[in-house]
Amino acid sequence: MSTEFLAEGSPTTPDGWRAATWACGIKYKDRDDLALLVSDGPCSAAAVFTTNKVKAAPVRYDMALLSRNAAGLRALVVNAGNANACTGPDGEAAALVMARAVETALSLPADTTFIMSTGTIGVPMPIAKVVTGISGAAARLDPANGLAAARAIMTTDTRPKHAALRVVLPSGTTVTLGGMAKGSGMIHPNMATLLSVVTTDAAVSPAALDVALRQAVALSFNSISIDGDTSTNDTLLVLANGVAGNPLIERLDTPDGAAFLTGLTALCQHLAQAVVRDGEGATRFVTINVRGARDAADAKLAAITIAKSPLVKTALYGADPNWGRVLCAIGYSGADVDPDRVVLLFGGMRVLEGGLPLPFDERAASDLLNVPEVTIDADLGLGTGAATVWTCDFGPDYITINAEYRT
Amino acid sequence: MSTEFLAEGSPTTPDGWRAATWACGIKYKDRDDLALLVSDGPCSAAAVFTTNKVKAAPVRYDMALLSRNAAGLRALVVNAGNANACTGPDGEAAALVMARAVETALSLPADTTFIMSTGTIGVPMPIAKVVTGISGAAARLDPANGLAAARAIMTTDTRPKHAALRVVLPSGTTVTLGGMAKGSGMIHPNMATLLSVVTTDAAVSPAALDVALRQAVALSFNSISIDGDTSTNDTLLVLANGVAGNPLIERLDTPDGAAFLTGLTALCQHLAQAVVRDGEGATRFVTINVRGARDAADAKLAAITIAKSPLVKTALYGADPNWGRVLCAIGYSGADVDPDRVVLLFGGMRVLEGGLPLPFDERAASDLLNVPEVTIDADLGLGTGAATVWTCDFGPDYITINAEYRT
Repeated sequence: MSTEFLAEGSPTTPDGWRAATWACGIKYKDRDDLALLVSDGPCSAAAVFTTNKVKAAPVRYDMALLSRNAAGLRALVVNAGNANACTGPDGEAAALVMARAVETALSLPADTTFIMSTGTIGVPMPIAKVVTGISGAAARLDPANGLAAARAIMTTDTRPKHAALRVVLPSGTTVTLGGMAKGSGMIHPNMATLLSVVTTDAAVSPAALDVALRQAVALSFNSISIDGDTSTNDTLLVLANGVAGNPLIERLDTPDGAAFLTGLTALCQHLAQAVVRDGEGATRFVTINVRGARDAADAKLAAITIAKSPLVKTALYGADPNWGRVLCAIGYSGADVDPDRVVLLFGGMRVLEGGLPLPFDERAASDLLNVPEVTIDADLGLGTGAATVWTCDFGPDYITINAEYRT
Repeated sequence: MSTEFLAEGSPTTPDGWRAATWACGIKYKDRDDLALLVSDGPCSAAAVFTTNKVKAAPVRYDMALLSRNAAGLRALVVNAGNANACTGPDGEAAALVMARAVETALSLPADTTFIMSTGTIGVPMPIAKVVTGISGAAARLDPANGLAAARAIMTTDTRPKHAALRVVLPSGTTVTLGGMAKGSGMIHPNMATLLSVVTTDAAVSPAALDVALRQAVALSFNSISIDGDTSTNDTLLVLANGVAGNPLIERLDTPDGAAFLTGLTALCQHLAQAVVRDGEGATRFVTINVRGARDAADAKLAAITIAKSPLVKTALYGADPNWGRVLCAIGYSGADVDPDRVVLLFGGMRVLEGGLPLPFDERAASDLLNVPEVTIDADLGLGTGAATVWTCDFGPDYITINAEYRT
């Protein structure tokens, strides 16, 4: 089994995928704000959606679509600048119009197109502009437009997030997975949206794709934390068109299934980490490894609680080897903890053992933290549960950006 | 029934209470850092402690003491500058020595003294200095020293927090409750500590006192949020010496019990709000009222989630009438929500109704938020559950203070 990331990878790197973009003028000027992504043939689909009870119209549309049809999907359209959230019945109608406009322009059957929206909430969707953009984009579809698509869906992101990798399945076929994501980490200006799509040319059944996605998400998008807020629009979609011609993957406990899951997880981790790296106000990318927990769930709980703590994150901004805040976060995480067994390391340097601080060199420890990529290791000393979570530090720009009066 | 706050109230305002302070030089120079509070007679006691699994030595000492003895307590000693947390067996010994030093100096029986510590963690307790201070303070006990005690327990607090109020019990006796608290809201430099003690001259049984304290805490100290971190040392203690001579309160479902509970709740709310008002980096005191929830627990969940959201708090700092962030927080709080029924008001101005933003004047709404005391009202439109929570905004000083390298 081999997994290899590809240079300039994007959602159109897998075979049988084309993209196009358009400048609709929804909110931004002089830039593309609509991306259309189309498969040459029908796709299996799986998705995870925001757990927020306030769900935007496109999220509700996609959830309903997926429940009706998880095997014959063809396209995805994404717009930036308007989230189509808190827009009432007009927003519901706009969501349907977006999907039908794609299907009409491309002569696809109804119920074959997913939609995603990101941007300001509570503002009516300028649906005429979007429909015009869809017609225009439909005439420009090309496999070369994957990177342009990743740029078109950006809002406050400072750079596009895209990747692709190749997996040689044990049965012999090489399959490719590609993807893009948007999310600026810090949420701006209303609620952020984390949107991501993964495409592949592998043949995977909808049921296997759903299980694989949930496992991959647990180790990627659900293992990052910026500020703990969950948006109304968060969506991660995976579409598999089978153009690679591999024997259909119907289970993950097969050599091909396991290889596909490994590739999907690696791609999702790459995209999720790209979101964290682009967190507004962030100056460091932080990896938090917890091991020795009673079980994996406890390890994840401790790691995500450390990652969410404003006190830990401000200390990291200041390169302060403040083990007390990390220990404190573990203590209130809800995970089983015996303080006398905890070991903590900052940047590989042991700073706490058996519940007591070691006589470490604070200046040297601060130097280990005063770098762009920081690691915190915690061993709870109770069992074999382990988890890794990624986060960023918490710098003054977070407040500057998020306190700004909306213009 | 009447409840009346008293000017310059403190823990020595109730009858039969004396205090003294001392400058031990534990960490701070040229200021008192030890407070001793003593009752003329034995007290009923009740307390709530941090839920953090990493508990400081004084917390563990007090929990054990309270389980042995909830009716014959006499004294409390508090030190600032060292939290006696993560200090191992030496810290355990120091906690015991602190209590015994008070009992020896005042010729009290063993197991009659509570202890509290706040300050830096992971640093050995300079117990000799503390014992010297206890001996000195024991010779200076005076009812006039209540305010000095409130000042002596400060760490990064910018002002002392103290209050007292008088309750005329329906049965005729007037009882007095006093108290002090420390807690700078934002946690600095390691983990903050919220410490508070309430004294009273009322006669209340330990069991009734425990029930009353838990009810009062739910509506006061457990209804505030600064940054969601829970420290190793948080303690709230109530001591009732019965000097007022009222008929012993043994139940809260009596006229006297209800009056006492009302007074205790009002005093705890005053002290808890004083902690929020002193939050470092805070520029506004924010009251969040949620009503119309399915039940009271849901209302509390929604209110505390709004209060904890960094996005809501930074918007409040910027006086941004960002209803989307509030609605979003309600949506992910876990409370039952039907977005189409939610009504939101900023400073009394209706900004959202039926899941849709109203065409309000953003400038006028911003002016309503650009004041020191802000109110957010949310009506979930589902039931009769209501809750109020207090918080502060999230200004740049939070990061400046908490990112500072420890000196």
